[in-house]
Amino acid sequence: MVRAARNTVSCATGKPPAKTIGRLSLYRRLLRDLFAPRGGNVYSRELAEAAGGTAAQVRRDLMMLGCSGCPRRGYDVQELARGIDEYLDAGKGQGVALVGVGNLGRALIAFFSGRCSKLELRAAFDNDPAKVDRVVGGCKVYSIDELPGTVRKLGIRIAIIAVPASEAQSVADTCFRAGVRGILNFAPTPVQVPDRTYVSGVDLTMALETVAFFAKGAGGRSPKPDA
Amino acid sequence: MVRAARNTVSCATGKPPAKTIGRLSLYRRLLRDLFAPRGGNVYSRELAEAAGGTAAQVRRDLMMLGCSGCPRRGYDVQELARGIDEYLDAGKGQGVALVGVGNLGRALIAFFSGRCSKLELRAAFDNDPAKVDRVVGGCKVYSIDELPGTVRKLGIRIAIIAVPASEAQSVADTCFRAGVRGILNFAPTPVQVPDRTYVSGVDLTMALETVAFFAKGAGGRSPKPDA
Repeated sequence: MVRAARNTVSCATGKPPAKTIGRLSLYRRLLRDLFAPRGGNVYSRELAEAAGGTAAQVRRDLMMLGCSGCPRRGYDVQELARGIDEYLDAGKGQGVALVGVGNLGRALIAFFSGRCSKLELRAAFDNDPAKVDRVVGGCKVYSIDELPGTVRKLGIRIAIIAVPASEAQSVADTCFRAGVRGILNFAPTPVQVPDRTYVSGVDLTMALETVAFFAKGAGGRSPKPDA
Repeated sequence: MVRAARNTVSCATGKPPAKTIGRLSLYRRLLRDLFAPRGGNVYSRELAEAAGGTAAQVRRDLMMLGCSGCPRRGYDVQELARGIDEYLDAGKGQGVALVGVGNLGRALIAFFSGRCSKLELRAAFDNDPAKVDRVVGGCKVYSIDELPGTVRKLGIRIAIIAVPASEAQSVADTCFRAGVRGILNFAPTPVQVPDRTYVSGVDLTMALETVAFFAKGAGGRSPKPDA
């Protein structure tokens, strides 16, 4: 019962849990890359197997969108992908800013380019004068000083932070004041933001050190990752 | 009580939860970057504030290492960092392999270089002949065909997978057969491995799409990220 509650809309916030949204994002990608090419329908157990979950969880997640498949025929792949599009995406494209155009920032520009059709990288920011006014991966680099005005002017509400730890909090504060309401934080330190902003942290060092810890204990049964 | 149980060694596996290991990795980084430069001691509440957790959780995590601070003086910063080193790190350095030398792979080489002192990137692999035998970020690129032999010869037990979705599972299988027991998977699809291997997945598209979903719902209280 606890699991079921976690998979439905959270009563306290009126919003679904972040993990459910993450799974919908994954289902959509699997539908497009794996199941759409073969055409026809898909069963919840097939989607579950590809996503590394259970069929019951897939059905609960999709029921949240109002999509209920037919036990004998499964779900129509195209219809399901459209249903997830409607639920996840904003009506029009959302603007994204990248803050920090170092190695990781440049790789993130390259990685995300064209990958999320409704998300558009509209500006990048860096405090290195050598990078400002250049175009990286099709995206103009502005000075960090221009962040508040540029983010407001371009209607950006999503920021990817890829700056050193020492600058992360002040960048997050500046982003929030400029109207950003979603932050993907790659800086190797947590940032604090007001409740009405959503932050997800990707701590690559933590992830690698955790893998290394469990790899050194040879054999034995590995713990299930928490995340 | 449930939280406390999650923070101690798991009875079922004899291993601590991955989230605890992740926090220890973060504490160590904060001790080195934030608290060591100022010298002296650190209180659990200071470490908790920097890590975005609670003082009680910090104390429980550190007690697992046998480190108990003094309520009045806190923890000795150097001693604590050493205690975490001893717990997390293998006696000697651990070898790491990168599979997939695309944009993301190259950024990961640059990002991890010198960041985790006890982890050493010993080989990179790609199936593009134009990349094979080149040196990227100080690391030699081998053909994927050479993976089993090279990983065994260099004693590598950790792999970072940064290949397209369609190749991820076969790369994970090859890594496992070659002796890899920890995988950090950046491919945009889950991989299945035998129980005695630890896999942590970093799904960047999922992370960004989740942030975008919550950013489009303006105002309101954001849900707490699950991860």
